[in-house]
Amino acid sequence: MTRAGFERVYREIFSFWDGIPEEDRDYICRNSDVFTYPKGKNIHDGSECSGVILVHSGSLRLYMMSDEGKEITLYRLHKGDMCMLSASCVINSITFDVFVDAEEDSECYVISGPAFAAAAERNPAVKIFALETAVGRFSDVMWVMQQILFMSMDKRLAIFLSDESARTGSDTVTLTHEQIARYMGSAREVVSRMLKYFANEGIVEVLRGGVTILDKKRLRQLTL
Amino acid sequence: MTRAGFERVYREIFSFWDGIPEEDRDYICRNSDVFTYPKGKNIHDGSECSGVILVHSGSLRLYMMSDEGKEITLYRLHKGDMCMLSASCVINSITFDVFVDAEEDSECYVISGPAFAAAAERNPAVKIFALETAVGRFSDVMWVMQQILFMSMDKRLAIFLSDESARTGSDTVTLTHEQIARYMGSAREVVSRMLKYFANEGIVEVLRGGVTILDKKRLRQLTL
Repeated sequence: MTRAGFERVYREIFSFWDGIPEEDRDYICRNSDVFTYPKGKNIHDGSECSGVILVHSGSLRLYMMSDEGKEITLYRLHKGDMCMLSASCVINSITFDVFVDAEEDSECYVISGPAFAAAAERNPAVKIFALETAVGRFSDVMWVMQQILFMSMDKRLAIFLSDESARTGSDTVTLTHEQIARYMGSAREVVSRMLKYFANEGIVEVLRGGVTILDKKRLRQLTL
Repeated sequence: MTRAGFERVYREIFSFWDGIPEEDRDYICRNSDVFTYPKGKNIHDGSECSGVILVHSGSLRLYMMSDEGKEITLYRLHKGDMCMLSASCVINSITFDVFVDAEEDSECYVISGPAFAAAAERNPAVKIFALETAVGRFSDVMWVMQQILFMSMDKRLAIFLSDESARTGSDTVTLTHEQIARYMGSAREVVSRMLKYFANEGIVEVLRGGVTILDKKRLRQLTL
């Protein structure tokens, strides 16, 4: 992409853009690149600073992984969202590792971590932006934690199905039980059991590779 | 406490102190107060901005609570530590509620949230300090989450007992099973069962209102 192309995107996204010197804007653009990731591709595994990732199309999934390979989805990033946790060299106080995968075919703009960090050192506004983005995700993660630790499984699954349906604008959630379990940080068996219960109640219909919501009203009641 | 007293404390704690104007230093000191909290007292319940809390003596416990009153300890604050999550008005992107209790009789310096926020608006260095403090705690919380979600109970309990013993400098951890469970985000029954197993193995001795570590080497092996 051209310098002008990056500039156009960054001016929209970065509240600090017009407040920093022309040479720093130039520096950030010169240290930017466009990447396309196929669905399922691991983009970041915590082992190095992968840079600041900005989603242009598709979606990314951010998750934690245990030594045994168990995953907990923390949040997903869609068009216009930015991943700062993949840029551990920008924010020193982040000492935990996260993984990032492309959930669909995705196109991303990636700013080199050291370059963004250098710009942040020179411009407090850039540093504040980076930290505020990270702290905002802290809130997301706390919400996930609250869900996992405190909420009953029927409520969690109902919320997940409602959110998915609202997000895609479809009554059918085209995810396997295995995928739903992974997004929810649960086990496939638990999700299957609960979906069977929902189906018996006439709330959903379980299809091959998907779940169709039949009774929106009762599903909504379960989320309360 | 006098203006000079606060000034002495803040110069030690706040890396930004000498870099902000005298009038802002004065403003922060004038909006500071000393509070003493008896053991067990709830200091912050998320309903309002309680300000920036600096622990001078004693210790505070930060936790999440479910609708049903189940608690998960996120971390504890000791002498010199600072609580930024209790000052929701300073960091807008924090949208979750935490609770803070005095775990021992504690003396704290509290800076009014709105005053600190105003100083942060005028001085990027203050804002960066606040955000970095919050992001640092993000790492602590992720560690707790990893423990709770991924780690086996024997390992978690061994780590908890080792840490407690190291912290207090005593082989006896004077906490009830109920208290240990609360700190670990687990259930009393689970902790009691695991302590019984440790006792049968000769690793600990379970006393009334406490646990004495008998075999440090084996306890340490369990933490690995």
